[in-house]
Amino acid sequence: MRVKHKKWAEPLMHDHPEMMVMDPAQLKGEWNKRFEKEQPLQLEVGMGKGQFIIGMAKAHPEINFIGLEVEHTVAAIALKKALPEKLPNLQLVCADGADLTDFFAPHSIDRMYLNFSDPWPKKRHAKRRLTYHTFLSGYQTILKAHGAIELKTDNMGFFEFSLVSMNNFGMQFDGVWLDLHHSDEAKQNVETEYEHKFSELGQPIYKLTAHFN
Amino acid sequence: MRVKHKKWAEPLMHDHPEMMVMDPAQLKGEWNKRFEKEQPLQLEVGMGKGQFIIGMAKAHPEINFIGLEVEHTVAAIALKKALPEKLPNLQLVCADGADLTDFFAPHSIDRMYLNFSDPWPKKRHAKRRLTYHTFLSGYQTILKAHGAIELKTDNMGFFEFSLVSMNNFGMQFDGVWLDLHHSDEAKQNVETEYEHKFSELGQPIYKLTAHFN
Ligand SMILES: C[S@@+](CC[C@H](N)C(=O)[O-])C[C@H]1O[C@@H](n2cnc3c(N)ncnc32)[C@H](O)[C@@H]1O
Ligand SMILES: C[S@@+](CC[C@H](N)C(=O)[O-])C[C@H]1O[C@@H](n2cnc3c(N)ncnc32)[C@H](O)[C@@H]1O
Repeated sequence: MRVKHKKWAEPLMHDHPEMMVMDPAQLKGEWNKRFEKEQPLQLEVGMGKGQFIIGMAKAHPEINFIGLEVEHTVAAIALKKALPEKLPNLQLVCADGADLTDFFAPHSIDRMYLNFSDPWPKKRHAKRRLTYHTFLSGYQTILKAHGAIELKTDNMGFFEFSLVSMNNFGMQFDGVWLDLHHSDEAKQNVETEYEHKFSELGQPIYKLTAHFN
Repeated sequence: MRVKHKKWAEPLMHDHPEMMVMDPAQLKGEWNKRFEKEQPLQLEVGMGKGQFIIGMAKAHPEINFIGLEVEHTVAAIALKKALPEKLPNLQLVCADGADLTDFFAPHSIDRMYLNFSDPWPKKRHAKRRLTYHTFLSGYQTILKAHGAIELKTDNMGFFEFSLVSMNNFGMQFDGVWLDLHHSDEAKQNVETEYEHKFSELGQPIYKLTAHFN
């Protein structure tokens, strides 16, 4: 996500170590202590400005959530939005999703979310797509057995790629939706910023839920 | 496919035993003798009026094709269309795709096509969908090792179901297209009757190619 550099971003993050983690490797195996309750742990990679993960944390107090975002200014915007909500089941992390296995112990995450990930449409950039097999391998390591990934996107090429990549990796599909907002699955849906924008333009939203064996 | 009963249908089929097979079980293991040359064998289930399979037989003289259709009148219309083409690499069959393992020896088919199969949208009719696991099991039996299935449809619900069903059966995806006619894959595409109709209406055509392991 491209946003203008904000002067307040870095200071805000450093002023809120109770909610914003800048060095997640230090918490490997110890994320529980960051939350009020010991309960299932779910992770979003590339949370953007945080609308989805904040919405999920509000809707599901029985689950602990971590929202991860690599861009500092974007992560700071999410933090600014999250602070007034005072959610004891939400932590934000500013770090690169390529290093998840440094941050989370094996089989410590219950469920993962990839929402409107950068599509990297050029073939030579395929390795950067968050559903490239090297990323899937990291997800498999940190997810519990049968742990699921939920993916939403408006990008046709990225969705086609992800269906093939996740299938070829040996993941089992639980559900595919080619027009999420006009399906039964819409009822329990929590929107992301991008999702709101694209669905307002009338574009179909694609969703895939799949788990490792 | 619903078509009006045609009086000429049955007589035409019985007059052309050289092209139209009414009792395919008798040819199990011996399909080669129905073709001029011994070459790879490909099968379409639910060929409708035959536009696709006739087009394929013309475009690929190096492959033998079988088009199968359960409705007598529809099969007869395909026959009428095929006869003037005098294609030595095409045979038509009037029979039920649920009985494929009675018609074809194990591992005798190189590739299969499912085009615009009846979607059976009601949940209680799921068993009738040509990508229900019982059908996939039959395809696996008659296809050669790593034999592929190519599926095209305009029906979103049927495509969503097929992606999940074929994935859950353990098939490997080779490619997914969510808008076939605006993709690179369009170049080599041979249209079906339904495909022509729906794509003219501006509807996206979905395609999946997958193989058994
Ligand atoms: C297109 S935005 C979507 C944001 C949000 N999920 C939504 O749906 O509105 C993708 C976000 O993923 C972040 N991102 C991309 N690669 C990442 C990575 N390797 N690790 C963490 N975040 C990443 C980008 O910085 C960007 O904010
Ligand atoms: C919707 S039409 C599509 C026809 C053609 N493939 C096309 O794309 O234009 C589906 C066809 O499949 C045939 N069909 C349905 N179930 C079948 C089965 N079990 N065995 C053989 N044909 C079947 C129907 O009779 C119908 O002609």
